[in-house]
Amino acid sequence: MRVAVLSGGVGGARFVQGLVDVVEPREVSVIGNVGDDVEVLGLHVSPDLDSILYALAGLNDEERGWGRAEETWRALETVRNLGGEDWFRLGDLDIGLHLVRTQALRSGEPLSAVTRRLAEVLGIDARILPATDDRLRTWLTTPAGEFPFQEWFVARGHRDEVDAVRFEGDAEAAPGVLEALDEAELVLVAPSNPYVSIGPILAVPEIRESLAGRRVPAVAVSPLIGGRAVRGPADRMLRRLAGGTSPAHVASAYPGLIDALVVDEADADDLDGLGDVRPIVTRTLMSDPDARRRLAEAALGAVVA
Amino acid sequence: MRVAVLSGGVGGARFVQGLVDVVEPREVSVIGNVGDDVEVLGLHVSPDLDSILYALAGLNDEERGWGRAEETWRALETVRNLGGEDWFRLGDLDIGLHLVRTQALRSGEPLSAVTRRLAEVLGIDARILPATDDRLRTWLTTPAGEFPFQEWFVARGHRDEVDAVRFEGDAEAAPGVLEALDEAELVLVAPSNPYVSIGPILAVPEIRESLAGRRVPAVAVSPLIGGRAVRGPADRMLRRLAGGTSPAHVASAYPGLIDALVVDEADADDLDGLGDVRPIVTRTLMSDPDARRRLAEAALGAVVA
Repeated sequence: MRVAVLSGGVGGARFVQGLVDVVEPREVSVIGNVGDDVEVLGLHVSPDLDSILYALAGLNDEERGWGRAEETWRALETVRNLGGEDWFRLGDLDIGLHLVRTQALRSGEPLSAVTRRLAEVLGIDARILPATDDRLRTWLTTPAGEFPFQEWFVARGHRDEVDAVRFEGDAEAAPGVLEALDEAELVLVAPSNPYVSIGPILAVPEIRESLAGRRVPAVAVSPLIGGRAVRGPADRMLRRLAGGTSPAHVASAYPGLIDALVVDEADADDLDGLGDVRPIVTRTLMSDPDARRRLAEAALGAVVA
Repeated sequence: MRVAVLSGGVGGARFVQGLVDVVEPREVSVIGNVGDDVEVLGLHVSPDLDSILYALAGLNDEERGWGRAEETWRALETVRNLGGEDWFRLGDLDIGLHLVRTQALRSGEPLSAVTRRLAEVLGIDARILPATDDRLRTWLTTPAGEFPFQEWFVARGHRDEVDAVRFEGDAEAAPGVLEALDEAELVLVAPSNPYVSIGPILAVPEIRESLAGRRVPAVAVSPLIGGRAVRGPADRMLRRLAGGTSPAHVASAYPGLIDALVVDEADADDLDGLGDVRPIVTRTLMSDPDARRRLAEAALGAVVA
C-alpha cells in the first residue's frame, strides 16, 4: 500500500519508524517540515528532516529524543570558548551532515535533491521529501514579540505563549511531493505539533489543496495523550489557539483535511465535536518499537475499516 | 624591542613560540601567510594563521605538528560516510574555529579583525596579522599542471615538482601590517618555506617595498639543516627553483630584503655566495622550548652584534 505521511521532527520520526516496520518502506513517502530550518554558524540545519533521516537510518538518540546517538560536542565547545554563536546545540556528528548539506545547497543543489542523496547514502528506502525547496520559515507571535521558530523554541525554550503562527515565504511543493500525495492510497499526518510541525507543510498551497481534494482517506494521529503533549508545547498552543486540547480541538487544526483521527485511550471519553472526523482509539505512546508499530497499524487500519 | 616577524605555518609558529619567550609578547607582530587559505566544505580555513594561533595559545599538537592537541575527527568521518569532501583533514576542535571565522567573514568582518578577536579570546598577547585581508592565493606550476596550493600540498601530497609559483589576487597589506613593519626595530623572517610560506607575504607589493626600504635589520632563519628541510618540500623546491640548497640559495629567495641569515651548524661549511648577507651560525632544530628560545635569541643577536 502506498502511503504519504506528513511529518514534523521527533514524534513524527518515531511514527515513521513504526510505519516502515509495517509497510514496505519503498511505498512510503515522508513529506517533512522545513519551517523550522535555520542557519546557525553559517550551516543550513533542517532539524525535522534530520530527525527523520537519523531515525530511519537507526542513528538517532532514543533517550535524548533528538540528534544522533553517541554524539559529542567538541566543535560547539570550541565555538563557545571563542565567543561564537552557541545557542543551538550542534553535535560533531550532526555538524558533519550540516557541512555536506550546506555546501551542496550553496552549490545550487535543491534541498530535495540533497535530502534524497543523504537518504540513499544512509541506506534509507523510504522517500524523504522536504515539503518545499523554497525558503519557508515559521514565525511565532507572542506577548513578548514575534520570533523565528528556533529563537522561540530553542533560545527562549518555548516559554512564550503563542498568539499566532505565521509562515514566511511563497513556497511551491518540492519535486515529488504532489506526485507522492497523488499516488498515495492513504495519507497520514504524524503525531506532530499541528501548528508548527504540520502547519508549515500545509502552508504550501499546493499541498493543502491536494489534501483538501483527496480521493483517498487521510488519517491524522493526535500528538496528545489525555489532553497533554508527550513533549513540547502542542497542548499549550492548542489551548490558546483552538480553545482546548480535546480530540475535536486537534481535529480543528486540520479543517476539511482529514477523515479520521487516531486518539489515545486516555482521550476516549472526550470525543464530542469531531463531526465528520472518525475517531480511532488506541494506545498512542510510542514507548518502544512494538508500540510504534501498533500505532502505525491502527492508523493504517482506517483504510481497511 | 619591537619585532615584526614574517611567518608561515608550522615551522614559523614554532619559531614565534620561541620568540615570545625572549621578547615581550606585546612587542611582537606576526605577519602571517594567507596564500594557502582554502575553502573546504564551505569553511574558510587559514592553516598558517591557525598554526600560529594554536601554538601561541598552547593548543597545538606538538607531535603531529599541525592542528590542535587532543583533536578528534568525528564530523569529518560523518562527512566521509555521507560522500562529502573529505580530502582536507579538519578536526572537530578545528572546525569550531573555522565555523566562527567563516561566519564572521560572511558577515563582512575582515580577516584581520577576526584574527585579532580570536587571538584575544585565546589570551595571546602577540599581534597576529594576516598579510592581507584581500583574497591572495598561491598556485603551483608543476609538470602535471597548475594547482592551487592545498590541492598540490594536501590532496597530491606535494609530490609534484614545482616549476613556478604564482600568486593570484591584487592584495593590499592588512590594517596594522605596514605600521608593524614601520615601528619594528628588527624584522625577522621565520624558518618557513621561502616560496610558498614567505613568498605570498612578499607578494603583497607594499610589504615587499617596506622590506626593501627598511631602516632596521632584517634577519631570515633558514628552514634547511644540512641542505634538507625538516619537513615539507622546501629543499626540493630550492633545488629546482634556485639551483641548490646552500645558505646562498636560501638567501637568493630574499633578494635585497635581508641583512643576515641564521643557518644551522650543519651548513657552516657552505657559506659561499652570501654576498652582503651575513651568516649567523647556530643550531636551528626547534626540538623543544629551549631550542626554540635559543634560535630566537640567535636571530635577535643580529641587532646587538
